[in-house]
Amino acid sequence: MSETPRRFVTKDEVRIQELPWGPHHWLCRPDMVDAKDLALVRVHMPPGTGHAFHAHPTMEEIIYVVEGKAEQWVDRERRELEPGEIAHIPPNVVHASYNPFDTTLVFLAILSPADLGGPPPVDVSGEEPWCSLREAE
Amino acid sequence: MSETPRRFVTKDEVRIQELPWGPHHWLCRPDMVDAKDLALVRVHMPPGTGHAFHAHPTMEEIIYVVEGKAEQWVDRERRELEPGEIAHIPPNVVHASYNPFDTTLVFLAILSPADLGGPPPVDVSGEEPWCSLREAE
Repeated sequence: MSETPRRFVTKDEVRIQELPWGPHHWLCRPDMVDAKDLALVRVHMPPGTGHAFHAHPTMEEIIYVVEGKAEQWVDRERRELEPGEIAHIPPNVVHASYNPFDTTLVFLAILSPADLGGPPPVDVSGEEPWCSLREAE
Repeated sequence: MSETPRRFVTKDEVRIQELPWGPHHWLCRPDMVDAKDLALVRVHMPPGTGHAFHAHPTMEEIIYVVEGKAEQWVDRERRELEPGEIAHIPPNVVHASYNPFDTTLVFLAILSPADLGGPPPVDVSGEEPWCSLREAE
């Protein structure tokens, strides 16, 4: 961090991370701005991909849909979220996001606290009931 | 709060608050979902309006532009933010958002913690240097 902390993150300053469920455009992280309680990433999820069932042991999260449509799960509850709609996920609650639709899904993942160095996400996608939930529909 | 906490906020469930600088569409608050660390509101700011210089004593904030363009100030630094760009505002740092442009500015204000019952925003818009900053340009 420079002596004058950065207060803005514009298009050219976004940090891009490639993950199997699409590029992640990081907008707010402790290594980018003076963030302590808030992290923000914009995910561009191509059709036919998804971020399977997982939980964050110590982080609270909001999913905000910007473009396209999300098949969003929180616990055993499923919704199709449109632009401007959200899911709220308390710490330790299992959730998943899928894009079974024709266009790229763009959503914001808002996380608290900002420190991403805490306990990593727990992948439960291979365990019951999570591995059978989508088939059961 | 019902026994099963609400995990989704869809279009019809948004809570609207009218303020002088435009309607606020609340998406995440402790009285809507089980939020502790994250609050989220979408502000629809008409041309010619603004939220003048103020500070939140105990809240960290991100401004994320969704549509239109923001004249965004953090401390004495000014940027024009476009869709997909952010400002990060630590607690107690003075900031302001204006829309001097021709189209409605839509932005998200992301706040932590979620409890809006803490110390209220401090309006410094009548004090130096804040009251002279925009004229000085």
